[in-house]
Amino acid sequence: MKIGVIGLGKMGFPLSLQLLDNQYEVVGFDPQTENKHALEKEGGEAAASMDDLISRLETPRTILLLVPAGEITEKVFQELRKKLSADDLMIDAGNAHYQDTLRRHQQLKDSGILFADSGTSGGMSGARNGLCAMVGADEKARPRLNELFETITIPNGFLLTGEVGSGHYLKMIHNGIEYGMMQSIGEGFELLEKGPFTYEYENVADMWNHGSVIRGWLMELTAQMFKEEPKLESIKGVMQSSGEGKWTVEAALEYQASAPVIAMSQLMRYRSLDENPFHGKVVAALRHQFGGHEVEKNE
Amino acid sequence: MKIGVIGLGKMGFPLSLQLLDNQYEVVGFDPQTENKHALEKEGGEAAASMDDLISRLETPRTILLLVPAGEITEKVFQELRKKLSADDLMIDAGNAHYQDTLRRHQQLKDSGILFADSGTSGGMSGARNGLCAMVGADEKARPRLNELFETITIPNGFLLTGEVGSGHYLKMIHNGIEYGMMQSIGEGFELLEKGPFTYEYENVADMWNHGSVIRGWLMELTAQMFKEEPKLESIKGVMQSSGEGKWTVEAALEYQASAPVIAMSQLMRYRSLDENPFHGKVVAALRHQFGGHEVEKNE
Repeated sequence: MKIGVIGLGKMGFPLSLQLLDNQYEVVGFDPQTENKHALEKEGGEAAASMDDLISRLETPRTILLLVPAGEITEKVFQELRKKLSADDLMIDAGNAHYQDTLRRHQQLKDSGILFADSGTSGGMSGARNGLCAMVGADEKARPRLNELFETITIPNGFLLTGEVGSGHYLKMIHNGIEYGMMQSIGEGFELLEKGPFTYEYENVADMWNHGSVIRGWLMELTAQMFKEEPKLESIKGVMQSSGEGKWTVEAALEYQASAPVIAMSQLMRYRSLDENPFHGKVVAALRHQFGGHEVEKNE
Repeated sequence: MKIGVIGLGKMGFPLSLQLLDNQYEVVGFDPQTENKHALEKEGGEAAASMDDLISRLETPRTILLLVPAGEITEKVFQELRKKLSADDLMIDAGNAHYQDTLRRHQQLKDSGILFADSGTSGGMSGARNGLCAMVGADEKARPRLNELFETITIPNGFLLTGEVGSGHYLKMIHNGIEYGMMQSIGEGFELLEKGPFTYEYENVADMWNHGSVIRGWLMELTAQMFKEEPKLESIKGVMQSSGEGKWTVEAALEYQASAPVIAMSQLMRYRSLDENPFHGKVVAALRHQFGGHEVEKNE
């Protein structure tokens, strides 16, 4: 079977290789010429344009989108929906906000074009060797998704989650849980670092992965990173975020779910971006005002 | 080798069986006669008293304490320290507070009695089949601990963490991390329950265990509990706690570590104990005072 892949970057390229390994034909498109050449070198076809990609697929077509959420996904989606026909299937495998996914699905309503949203976890190595995928889809599209996703996921790592939007919503919650778990692990190691004993963190994380309650993939990564650098000397404690944690907190507000730990994990990421936080100035100045407590001055 | 086990309850009994499986001789003591009979039935010796237990062991003795933290540990420790001799080794494998452990260690200083503190994770099945253990100890005791703990832990699940106290401190932090991870998982599923889509939670947790970032033992237990009861209908959302989370928050205050997620996880457990929280009355009454907003009345 031949499949179209739009976006041959960090996820799309290794995923294309996995498809080629599994007897799929892949026709890929990416604005970066070097990504297209890399695909051709591995036995795939590179399309010169989206039109070219569409013309190289037999109907009904199946096209995987692996492009960044937001503007680029929007642009590719809008272009594709004008060019595809009824029963063609577009699978957004990026991290779109589920409400964008619902809106896009609505826009396809009268076209007969089928839509699926795949929340994918497992990173680049997962894309190469087997992902975890939670996929919402039009009912009519679901039989066509089974074979494809059984191929690109690890055994039992694929779930059809129901209607369109449910895949991206579930992936968002997955990332929210991840934020809370990561912050909790981070705080635990801070308590080891500041506490009265001295530990080898690599050994601690490795031992915790063998029989403890908190064993899991994040703790395996923790052992790995402390193996590479025992005190993470080279790394600043600045925690960026890419949106899904924020969306999870927004969902908590929308659906009135008390989720203080996930919310706090997101807010602590923002806290980490400020070296000299304004709320800190306010509190220090107030202590000075009413109690005469000293403030630390900027140089 | 013959070893003494004090406390033949939820942890001590299965651990004794594991020792017997591994060619250890076990002499156990427990105030409950039925626990002692159970041990005898499985091939262990039951001591009539602590004195009897001590007399049945050759010097230097090794005695494992598997009794509840707090008062009972204190009582057993104080009795033992009067009866043991130099080079005897007492291993507290319960969940003592590390500061109690440090104090007890101090009390042994001039006696020559050796002390070790084992933080143990893995629950009853771990005690039966292989634990995860983080063990602080007097330097002189460490060679004697290796063989014993290699036997009762799973491969790579044993770490000598350093001086006395460091095992219990590390176990406390482990439980603090566990609190944050569990609260985060709980909040995630609440966001699924209150959100706009319908999921089979058992399938979600099972899929997340196959390739996702948040895979791990807690998520395996999550899949298992949703398999047993898809919406946990029979369970109240009341979260008890047994002290180690609270101690972790106290350590955060003591060592000035910013650990808001672990702290919030503990506070949310307290929140769950109140059906009708007093802070809620205060806030509702204040809204009524200044804004005339309606309050909900107790029946």
